[in-house]
Amino acid sequence: MAHISIIGSGNMGQAISGLVAKGGNTVELVNSSDAGKPVTGDIVVLAVPYSSVASVIAERGAQLAGKVVVDITNPLNFETFDSLTVPADSSAAAEIAAALPESHVVKAFNTNFAGTLQAGSVGGQTTTVLIAGDDADAKALLAGVVGAAGLRSVDAGGLKRARELESLGFLQLTLAVGEKISWTGGFAVTE
Amino acid sequence: MAHISIIGSGNMGQAISGLVAKGGNTVELVNSSDAGKPVTGDIVVLAVPYSSVASVIAERGAQLAGKVVVDITNPLNFETFDSLTVPADSSAAAEIAAALPESHVVKAFNTNFAGTLQAGSVGGQTTTVLIAGDDADAKALLAGVVGAAGLRSVDAGGLKRARELESLGFLQLTLAVGEKISWTGGFAVTE
Repeated sequence: MAHISIIGSGNMGQAISGLVAKGGNTVELVNSSDAGKPVTGDIVVLAVPYSSVASVIAERGAQLAGKVVVDITNPLNFETFDSLTVPADSSAAAEIAAALPESHVVKAFNTNFAGTLQAGSVGGQTTTVLIAGDDADAKALLAGVVGAAGLRSVDAGGLKRARELESLGFLQLTLAVGEKISWTGGFAVTE
Repeated sequence: MAHISIIGSGNMGQAISGLVAKGGNTVELVNSSDAGKPVTGDIVVLAVPYSSVASVIAERGAQLAGKVVVDITNPLNFETFDSLTVPADSSAAAEIAAALPESHVVKAFNTNFAGTLQAGSVGGQTTTVLIAGDDADAKALLAGVVGAAGLRSVDAGGLKRARELESLGFLQLTLAVGEKISWTGGFAVTE
C-alpha cells in the first residue's frame, strides 16, 4: 500500500487522486489553504502549473526530502501556446530535480489528459502513463500505483527523457487547443 | 494527381512509396545510383538518414527549388540513442529549410514507423501522419496524398513544431529499441 499526497486540486490533481483511490492506495489532497500542514505521502505529486512549482518548493522543499516527487507539468507559455518556458536543452523536471536534490524526482502524467486518466482508456487502448526518472525504485513505486488502477505504465528512461515527454505534452496540448484532437483523445501508446 | 519523388529506398522510402501508389498518385523512387537523373516530382521526399541529407542537398539542391520537400528524418545519435544531433533549439527540418530557401519544406512521417504506414493502422486506429510546415499549400498537397491512401493526416502547425515532432520520433524510437513497444505499434493519434 502506497500513500500519496497530491498538491493541487485542479482537474489533473482530481484525476490522479481518483486513479490512486481506484487502485486501493491512499491519497491526501493538499491545496494552497493547507499551507501549514506537512505532506505525509511517500509519493508527492506536484499537480500545480509549472509557474506555481517554485512557490510550492519554497514552502515545502524540506518536507519533500527523501520522497518520490512527481512532476506532471507542461511548462508552456500559455499566452502564445507556441513555446516552452524552460531552456531548450533542459526540462521542467530537470529544473525541479535541481531544486530538490534530496528528493527522487520523476516525470509522469504530463502526456495524459485528465479525461483519459479517468476513463482508463484512449482510442480503445488502455491509457498509458509514461514515466521518466533516474531512480528505478521511485519509478517502480509509481508504476505500481498506476498499474493497481488498471492503467499501463511504460518506463520512458532517465530523467533526461523528460525533455521529450514535455515536447509530447506540449504538442498534444497544441493539437487539443487547435481542435485537431479532443480532450478525451490524444496520443495513445500502442504495444 | 500528384507526382512524388522519393530519394532513398530503405524501409521508410518503400513504405511511403507504397502509400503514394495506394492512393493513385504516381511515384518515382530514386537511389544513390541515380545521381545523374534529376527528380521530377512536385513533392520530393528525403527518405535518407539525416546524416545523408547534406550530401543529397549538395547534389540536388538546385533541382529542389520550387518543390515541396518532405523531411522525414529523426536526427538521432544512433550510437547512444540518447540525444539528437541537431541543436536543442533547432530541428533537422529547420536546418534543411535553411539549406533549401527556395523549397517548401515540411516535416512529416518521422513519427510513423514503416510498418504502421504499410498497415494503415496502429493499435486499431487509422495511422495518422503529423505534418508541420510554414506553407499551407505544401501541407495540403501532402495531406491529399496521405488521405488518398486512406490514412489520416493532422496539421501539427508551423515548421517550428518540427522540434516537437522530432522529440516524439526520438522518444518512440527509444521505446522500440528498448522493447517497450513494437515496430508495428507506437504512438497512435486519437481524435
